Amino acid sequence: MLSHSSFITTFTLLYKCRNQSNMKDSKKVTDVNEYGEFGLIDLLTKPFKSKLKSTFKGVGDDSGIIKNAKDYTAITTDFLIEGIHFDVIYTPMKHLGYKAVVVNLSDIYAMNIIPSHITVSIAISSKYSVEALEEFYEGIKAACDMYHVDLIGGDTTSHLKGMAICVTAVGSTQDQNSITYRSGARQGDILCVTGNLGAAYLGLQILEREKHLYLSDDKIKPELSKYTYLIERQLKPEANKAAVEYFHKIGLVPTSMIDISDGLSSDLMHICSQSSVGAYIEETKVPIIEEAKSLAIEFNMNPITCALNGGEDYELLFTIDPMDIEKIKFMPDVHIIGEIVSASDKVTLHSSGGAIHPLQAQGWNHF
Amino acid sequence: MLSHSSFITTFTLLYKCRNQSNMKDSKKVTDVNEYGEFGLIDLLTKPFKSKLKSTFKGVGDDSGIIKNAKDYTAITTDFLIEGIHFDVIYTPMKHLGYKAVVVNLSDIYAMNIIPSHITVSIAISSKYSVEALEEFYEGIKAACDMYHVDLIGGDTTSHLKGMAICVTAVGSTQDQNSITYRSGARQGDILCVTGNLGAAYLGLQILEREKHLYLSDDKIKPELSKYTYLIERQLKPEANKAAVEYFHKIGLVPTSMIDISDGLSSDLMHICSQSSVGAYIEETKVPIIEEAKSLAIEFNMNPITCALNGGEDYELLFTIDPMDIEKIKFMPDVHIIGEIVSASDKVTLHSSGGAIHPLQAQGWNHF
Repeated sequence: MLSHSSFITTFTLLYKCRNQSNMKDSKKVTDVNEYGEFGLIDLLTKPFKSKLKSTFKGVGDDSGIIKNAKDYTAITTDFLIEGIHFDVIYTPMKHLGYKAVVVNLSDIYAMNIIPSHITVSIAISSKYSVEALEEFYEGIKAACDMYHVDLIGGDTTSHLKGMAICVTAVGSTQDQNSITYRSGARQGDILCVTGNLGAAYLGLQILEREKHLYLSDDKIKPELSKYTYLIERQLKPEANKAAVEYFHKIGLVPTSMIDISDGLSSDLMHICSQSSVGAYIEETKVPIIEEAKSLAIEFNMNPITCALNGGEDYELLFTIDPMDIEKIKFMPDVHIIGEIVSASDKVTLHSSGGAIHPLQAQGWNHF
Repeated sequence: MLSHSSFITTFTLLYKCRNQSNMKDSKKVTDVNEYGEFGLIDLLTKPFKSKLKSTFKGVGDDSGIIKNAKDYTAITTDFLIEGIHFDVIYTPMKHLGYKAVVVNLSDIYAMNIIPSHITVSIAISSKYSVEALEEFYEGIKAACDMYHVDLIGGDTTSHLKGMAICVTAVGSTQDQNSITYRSGARQGDILCVTGNLGAAYLGLQILEREKHLYLSDDKIKPELSKYTYLIERQLKPEANKAAVEYFHKIGLVPTSMIDISDGLSSDLMHICSQSSVGAYIEETKVPIIEEAKSLAIEFNMNPITCALNGGEDYELLFTIDPMDIEKIKFMPDVHIIGEIVSASDKVTLHSSGGAIHPLQAQGWNHF
């Protein structure tokens, strides 16, 4: 038995906590919005220093990396919260299960590692039926089959309201030099992105618009068939397995890599701040499909804004040494969108009209 | 790019899901309470078959086990949900952070493996201040320091109401034969438990009683000083690091092991069902400290019931080969409480009066 030492000093203080520091209605408290997502994570994790030799990469990248005897094991975890990350009015449970897995696998791929295992934890309120959970696990299984990963654990518990999902994904490599971090970009590197951007965000706009119409009059049949691709990007995203398999096949190791979950702009800022570099993006080179462009315009939005800040694309943003440019010549669905420059040149967008705009990171601000 | 195939068939169906299978107000749905926690987990995870050679142990034990080149990596994850697992009115944030880590480390120790790394994910509503979160992370850090583990990742997001915490813990061993499962108990094995049982449950009863008094009249000063130990067992449990280190030191590998989170009765049932054996517990041998006994009586409860069903003790329940009995002779704070018998003899309690009672598993039933 370990000693149950003096961690608790004065029990009579316990009951005061409600009016003390836990909650915002007390004297000296700071709203989390003053920090924002990334500032808050920095603040909270700064006191943690790695103690173990096996801690190869700690907090701050898409995944942490554990070094074992021969293997480097990447581990990552993500929450999906009802009402914040998903709305059950338009999210089928199967899609939700699939997406919960995929967004985590994407973080392992972003380390240039093939994911192998997941755990799935859910907390559910009484409104969820056994059938709903079976559907959810069908989605989990579809993702496991699609990405060839095994489910090896989790937790199932109750929740007072709604549903919270927490998936952890793991993957290993024996080749230390093939791991890609956010911190490896160097001046002169070429900036690339896979697939196309902004579609998931626009899919969400459609779902939200049709939801509001439906809620105002449930005889209105949602008009979704025109937007199949955009909606699928939102409800059932895919991680870019093919890109990482291609890197492995041709023996290309990007100098840095991140998956686009927060939006091109934010995620590029992560690479730049962790690599101590700047970057520019050529606006005309950012891949946006026609369907997304026309819908953005229908919503009175600038398509490039959707691509820069929309998020949830789960494409890969990576940099390569200019010497490696020949290697991606035949890589399918990849786009050179800019270049890494010195930190003093900041992170900018070169617009089609020739203007230079500074880019800014945006995390969540849901509070 | 992977193809975004025909996963979604009819988009117009999406909006119907609210009245279809997601929620309980539709036709053919089953309440999760009809299955209970363990039945539900079985139902949901049954369709998953392991595909990878590296999946050494899948769903169903305290941790899953991944086999790498030389290492066996245990991974486990647990939710703590506000209003279900903790009540912020009497839970200081620092204790909460500490406990969230410890309950996961306990699952790694239960595999006879030393934990090494954790990830911590939190979802928080706007009522939580930066200071509250800093306190929470102080508790996380205190646990990391106490158990010599490193924090290597996580997720920080918002929640509509309250707080949800999901911690994942990892640990590795190179000795396959030292891993202990729930499934290894054999007829004739000796049943042992560390520490003492029921204290965490009784600590919770005190906290709940004083909370109700306090809520009825906030001038009443909670009377907690008499129950320091019991309350600390509830608010700041410890994982039994010392026991596992002792096993390693003396070279004893229990035939089966589990940590007591649900209660002695439930957790013994897990060992018995997974080992296809029965067991009996000698009531008089179950370790219950005086403080817990007298408080149980004050609450008109039977102390043995608290020990059997209380849960959250995070002690280790394990079985050893009778040949190994000499090895635990000098092990501190361990108790022989019964024996493994054949499955046909069921799982029973031999009461002090000589009667034999069948034992039953109890999971949560919060819905």
